[in-house]
Amino acid sequence: MTHNKSSLATPAELHTFVGAALRAADLPAGDAEAIASLMVQADMQGSDGHGVIRLSQYVKRIEAGGINRVPKIRMVSDRPAMAVIDGDNGMGHLVVTAATKLAIEKARETGVAWVGTRNSNHAGPASLYARMAVEQKMIALYFAVGNANHMPPWGGTDLLLSTNPIAVAIPTKDEVDVVLDMASTATAYGKVKAKAKRGELMPEGWMMDRSGRPLVDPTKSDEGFLLPIGGHKGYGLALVIGILAGTLNGAAMGKQVVDFNKDSSTRTNTGQSIVVLDVNAFADLEDFTRAIDTLIGDLRNSAKLPGVDRIWMPGEQSAIKRERFRAGGIPISNGVLRDLDLLADQLSIGRLKTFSTATTGVL
Amino acid sequence: MTHNKSSLATPAELHTFVGAALRAADLPAGDAEAIASLMVQADMQGSDGHGVIRLSQYVKRIEAGGINRVPKIRMVSDRPAMAVIDGDNGMGHLVVTAATKLAIEKARETGVAWVGTRNSNHAGPASLYARMAVEQKMIALYFAVGNANHMPPWGGTDLLLSTNPIAVAIPTKDEVDVVLDMASTATAYGKVKAKAKRGELMPEGWMMDRSGRPLVDPTKSDEGFLLPIGGHKGYGLALVIGILAGTLNGAAMGKQVVDFNKDSSTRTNTGQSIVVLDVNAFADLEDFTRAIDTLIGDLRNSAKLPGVDRIWMPGEQSAIKRERFRAGGIPISNGVLRDLDLLADQLSIGRLKTFSTATTGVL
Repeated sequence: MTHNKSSLATPAELHTFVGAALRAADLPAGDAEAIASLMVQADMQGSDGHGVIRLSQYVKRIEAGGINRVPKIRMVSDRPAMAVIDGDNGMGHLVVTAATKLAIEKARETGVAWVGTRNSNHAGPASLYARMAVEQKMIALYFAVGNANHMPPWGGTDLLLSTNPIAVAIPTKDEVDVVLDMASTATAYGKVKAKAKRGELMPEGWMMDRSGRPLVDPTKSDEGFLLPIGGHKGYGLALVIGILAGTLNGAAMGKQVVDFNKDSSTRTNTGQSIVVLDVNAFADLEDFTRAIDTLIGDLRNSAKLPGVDRIWMPGEQSAIKRERFRAGGIPISNGVLRDLDLLADQLSIGRLKTFSTATTGVL
Repeated sequence: MTHNKSSLATPAELHTFVGAALRAADLPAGDAEAIASLMVQADMQGSDGHGVIRLSQYVKRIEAGGINRVPKIRMVSDRPAMAVIDGDNGMGHLVVTAATKLAIEKARETGVAWVGTRNSNHAGPASLYARMAVEQKMIALYFAVGNANHMPPWGGTDLLLSTNPIAVAIPTKDEVDVVLDMASTATAYGKVKAKAKRGELMPEGWMMDRSGRPLVDPTKSDEGFLLPIGGHKGYGLALVIGILAGTLNGAAMGKQVVDFNKDSSTRTNTGQSIVVLDVNAFADLEDFTRAIDTLIGDLRNSAKLPGVDRIWMPGEQSAIKRERFRAGGIPISNGVLRDLDLLADQLSIGRLKTFSTATTGVL
């Protein structure tokens, strides 16, 4: 990824800035801290469509009354291996964190646990929550309904489906944890937004217009729709993920999905589902993680196509970015920085402290 | 799908034939019946790469000692919401049926249950087992490690991954149940085999040769590999599905996978995982299934791209085939029929009774 005209911020400065903005929007201090921490993690792993780029939008929604600043997050269904949590329209980061913690706790007892959310909100990249389980050496699967419909059913043109992502995280012994985080579309809409902010064109295959022509200008994204991976397969995947994360939890899906890019005041009733597996219930943890390390080694060291330098594991490039950005700073594009400066002035908080980079880096 | 030069068999005749073949291969009569029933279901829903086309191969493997005719299927791990079953190298259909029944039973208690298998074998199309849960008005997810590696990791050329399918089945009220059944590759290897049997070429995008050129002749499938859906995304999906269905259950994955097309005697140690959700734990079943019917109606009745007649739901075309083939007979290609005739003669059983169709039907 080439970051043209970007500045850098240290993780600490970015955290401080996001926390200050959320407190200035009247979120309780503890919640502002927790959300800031997750948003900085998103940018640090290169999920630049789901991190600080969303801050102005979150603040706008909080101030428009579209988010409950002091939600009473509560369980509305409960069985030994499952629960449904009502997020009371709080910030999604808080609701999904609560769901993930509960799933981890239940999985320790029952071996596997599935916790769904309703009345939640956009919570950043799916991998953040799957990784919470991996830090406990557990496996997690995560499904979410996206917060705007950008895809028609296969063969259609009405935007009735979102990019509905799936994440799966698997612990290792010495290798980087395996963390798959993928939209069921060829790209996530957040990446379209990031392209627009950076003033770049999209590759063909990301979007199509309503007459079936490729759409490459991200500022014209309203004139078309995202394309699913594998044609009808990605459509089917988006549909079932939406049902598992939305309909099943009593959350929005299909026509009910509120476009949070255009509407900041209507309750989104976002749904997510997290599934946690206690590896110890299936196998000896040491044996299992060693087997995953061996599998990774077999894949990485296998023969490569001409011109290919390295075979990557899901999550590996994010892990490298995490280390690089921790040490060298997180790239913030000039478009995003302008937004954040405006936001700082509106909220009467200090602007984000950045330092510039002489050369543009290919990461 | 155009069936050139095919004959038709009634479901009852096909069932009788498959059952007789398996009994002649010395499987116990009850097991032969259960397997025949699932294999006929596969062909009836149009999963023609996973039904009777595999019969000769199964018999060859049984006779070569690669399958245990009288397995003692037993639980090796057990927690309230999970289990791992050791299939004792029995026919996969029996092992996965046992796993599915156990997952359904456990899910009624705990809300959600996850049951994995090891020492299992090829079990036919993933959707068969997900549909068993749907018949109980429950939701199911199914993951499996394929029985031959046909795909390299993204950027590689060594065949270290299979097509590792995922199935998700969701009950409805009056609509056809939603049943997604997809390989993480652009196509399943069974479909390549079916193309070869029918003497047809493959479309570009299904396979690639080791120098990166499209491969369209299914009889040359050994010279290349299957392509994942969505590039690196499908690779990631195949990898995590393989870990969830294989490594986690102590079953084969990666280098350990035995190519059952080439080797009929080595134990495959196939792994599968089935996850069952009791809808009643999450929502009122009536409300949920009605919501799914509404969602389906919204999608089906939405605007279509020029030239598109109908928007399909996952599983809908299979359901239509099921009804059509039940009434009008199951198409058996001449290539498959020749194999079955040979098999009948070898086993000294009556040949499959078929009737021919005057016109070739576009289904």
